[in-house]
Order: sequence, then C-alpha cells, then structure tokens
Amino acid sequence: MIIEKNGFIHHVFFWLKNPHSKEDLASLIEGLTKLKEVSTIESFHIGKPAATNRNVIDSGYSLSWLLLFKNKEAQDSYQVDPIHLNFVDTCSHLWSKVIVYDTIGIE
Amino acid sequence: MIIEKNGFIHHVFFWLKNPHSKEDLASLIEGLTKLKEVSTIESFHIGKPAATNRNVIDSGYSLSWLLLFKNKEAQDSYQVDPIHLNFVDTCSHLWSKVIVYDTIGIE
Repeated sequence: MIIEKNGFIHHVFFWLKNPHSKEDLASLIEGLTKLKEVSTIESFHIGKPAATNRNVIDSGYSLSWLLLFKNKEAQDSYQVDPIHLNFVDTCSHLWSKVIVYDTIGIE
Repeated sequence: MIIEKNGFIHHVFFWLKNPHSKEDLASLIEGLTKLKEVSTIESFHIGKPAATNRNVIDSGYSLSWLLLFKNKEAQDSYQVDPIHLNFVDTCSHLWSKVIVYDTIGIE
C-alpha cells in the first residue's frame, strides 16, 4: 500500500436515499465497479464504514469511494469522462447526499 | 499507487482553531510527521485541499491525514500507541474540529 506524496486524492462518501435497501446498495456498487474503468484512475477502493465508534467518527455513510490520481489534471479528466457522466446519469437517483474531499500533498 | 481491497482506511480531516495561522499549520504538520512513525501504519499522506470547487466538495479543512492499515487490529493498535497519545496531548489544542472516516472494503 503506497500513497504517492504528489498524487491527487479524491475521496467521496455516499449516503443512500434508502440506506436499508440492499438492492440500492448493490446498484451503487455495480455503478462504481463500472466507473473504476476510467483510464486516468491510478488506484480505487470501494468501502463501507468500519466497526469503529468514537464521537469524531462519521460512520453514517453507505459507501466510500477513494480514488488516487497522478495529478489534478487526471482528476479533471475523470470528471468529464463519458464513463463518469454515465455513472452520474444512472446512479445519482440512489443517493441523498454526497461529500467529496479533494486533497493534494503539502509542499 | 495501490490501495489493498482488504486494508483499513483511516481518513482524518482537521479544522484549525486559527485557520490562517501558518505557525499552527506548521505545528500540526510537525506533529503528524512524528505520528507517521507508528509502526502499524502501512502508508500515510499529509494533504491540503486541492484547487477544486463544486458544491459537493468540502474544502474548508486545514489538513487531511490519510492512513492505510493492514486491518482493523492494526488501526486499533495505532489508537493506543504512545506516539499517537503524545500527538493528541501536544497537538489537540490546535484544532477546533476533526472528522474521521474509517472504511473497510466491501465483501
């Protein structure tokens, strides 16, 4: 496991509209599985909340989508990639809330 | 850049009490630089908000601290490691807010 200092980290958290729907969760996972094919993605991770519990931990989301890109340009390209646009078209009805954190290394 | 499917992702976002203080930012970076020596950490990344801007992006934090662990047990051990406890003791006065996302791979 290596995170390159100069890479671009794109971490998305999805809250499902129907958080108890296994079908909706499966649909979003299916969408992300297609989305990972975008060629500028260096590494991806589809996750769920771990079994930790402290007051600073937000574990209310349904899925975590962590992407590593080589640089900001690669992430910008991902945003407008047809595969990404298709993902938004076909899956955005599934979630009620999304939070995105875009992070680059400190100098 | 590789994220192992079965690893444990620990992503922390810090909001500084004095967000415009370069000294406080430097102190927190110094603290994290010591903290990265905890032996159960597989990979770490100290980051800042990227220059992206959409309504779903939260870019108000001061620093991002992304850690990859082999599994939950390794992260549990990190939480009680003396280096981590010392970091909290010496740096917690610097921040006003912390959000933590702990994530494991989907099956």
